[in-house]
Amino acid sequence: MRIALGISYHGGAYQGWQSQPGGQTVQDRLEAALAQFADVPHIATLCAGRTDAGVHGLGQVVHFDTTLNRAMNSWVRGTNRYLPPDIAVQWASPVPEAFHARASAVARRYAYVLLESPVRPSFETGRVGWVFRPLDEAAMRAAAAHLIGEHDFSSFRAAQCQALSPIKHLRRLDIRRRGAYWRFDFEANAFLHHMIRNIMGCLVAVGQGLRSPDWMAEVRDARSRETAAPTFAPDGLYFLGPVYEARWGLPDTTPGFDWLP
Amino acid sequence: MRIALGISYHGGAYQGWQSQPGGQTVQDRLEAALAQFADVPHIATLCAGRTDAGVHGLGQVVHFDTTLNRAMNSWVRGTNRYLPPDIAVQWASPVPEAFHARASAVARRYAYVLLESPVRPSFETGRVGWVFRPLDEAAMRAAAAHLIGEHDFSSFRAAQCQALSPIKHLRRLDIRRRGAYWRFDFEANAFLHHMIRNIMGCLVAVGQGLRSPDWMAEVRDARSRETAAPTFAPDGLYFLGPVYEARWGLPDTTPGFDWLP
Repeated sequence: MRIALGISYHGGAYQGWQSQPGGQTVQDRLEAALAQFADVPHIATLCAGRTDAGVHGLGQVVHFDTTLNRAMNSWVRGTNRYLPPDIAVQWASPVPEAFHARASAVARRYAYVLLESPVRPSFETGRVGWVFRPLDEAAMRAAAAHLIGEHDFSSFRAAQCQALSPIKHLRRLDIRRRGAYWRFDFEANAFLHHMIRNIMGCLVAVGQGLRSPDWMAEVRDARSRETAAPTFAPDGLYFLGPVYEARWGLPDTTPGFDWLP
Repeated sequence: MRIALGISYHGGAYQGWQSQPGGQTVQDRLEAALAQFADVPHIATLCAGRTDAGVHGLGQVVHFDTTLNRAMNSWVRGTNRYLPPDIAVQWASPVPEAFHARASAVARRYAYVLLESPVRPSFETGRVGWVFRPLDEAAMRAAAAHLIGEHDFSSFRAAQCQALSPIKHLRRLDIRRRGAYWRFDFEANAFLHHMIRNIMGCLVAVGQGLRSPDWMAEVRDARSRETAAPTFAPDGLYFLGPVYEARWGLPDTTPGFDWLP
């Protein structure tokens, strides 16, 4: 049978999601814990969205296949017993063979949290990006508007990106503020590697007045990584999770959603 | 001259605030950073409220005396250069000799953040207390009401507490919820050692239906630590900071206030 799991983690201690030989990754830890609980040599998982080193996951989803017949609740509790304190399985749900954590996702959602303060982060280190100069909200909104819709996002794409096409549909880029913290909410059918961190670099350049809002359209149209701002820090990036069709009957929220500013 | 500093920190890596021989404490790190910046052998600080191991500080305040004449902004930036990433000076302000970080504080404010979820914390590990059984808000409010006002809080006092009197005035114990997270806001003229964590243990016992709301009055009146629930985890406790009279002209907010649920 095929089982889908909801996973939350703090990415600070890991070299990203994807398994690496001898690597300290979230996938390695999850698969080891699943195998320990299931008492089998290995369980391979496939995730909805790989996250980079230092990026956090609130609503990551994976699927795996097993012949082991256990209650869904046992998969959650049993696996969590073998996971480190910064990773947890939030839910488990049986899914048909037709379900695929990556291919069935019709959209992905991410949030980026940014501290705007003359003083660097302290108690929230590793959980926020940081700017010490004040940001212009109207300018950032105007810049963000140039990215909404279907575009060739090559300018915001990392060299090592493995996506088949640079054309993605960005459905949402909402900007809001809560005191010293800015929150940027992204939703697209899919994202290129480093796409959000590269967009964040550009939004911050606009927000600080180093570039005009319309510069974002120029960067977009250039279809060249050379034109965009440097990749922004991973620390403030949270993978909120994939969006699936309702027919799969999967939960689409986790407690962590209520934590972010 | 006397200088007051606002300090924020994540307490997870430290054996609490107070300096210890060979100890890894927030005070040790702060005093070492101040001395490095000031290029003197040692700078002694005195804080508004000592925090235990694992407890966080958002608006801690200290004072120290120095003959060094530097711009206040230099004290902030210069000291932060020598502090680890989980501690930062938020502000510096000159104060008269009559100001004393502890003695001048007319009140202290703390917040406790609690995750209510069948699954243990993951990305927020070390930053929240955790209960897996649902909490009854009305019952906890009724229990909390028994503690408001001036009382002998001996039942909630740690054996090693050094306070001169167990009689404290609890002005506020507000309870609110944001999704899976509960937030408890405490304000009193002063707190006994472990007082909030011991009250939290009792509130959770009431919230889970193990005790009635009126049991809180019995515990209070018993004036004996034996009667109260076990001390709750330090992870979810945040020292928001002291309250001073306006005449000192000190900031009473830090960015971190906007982060908590």
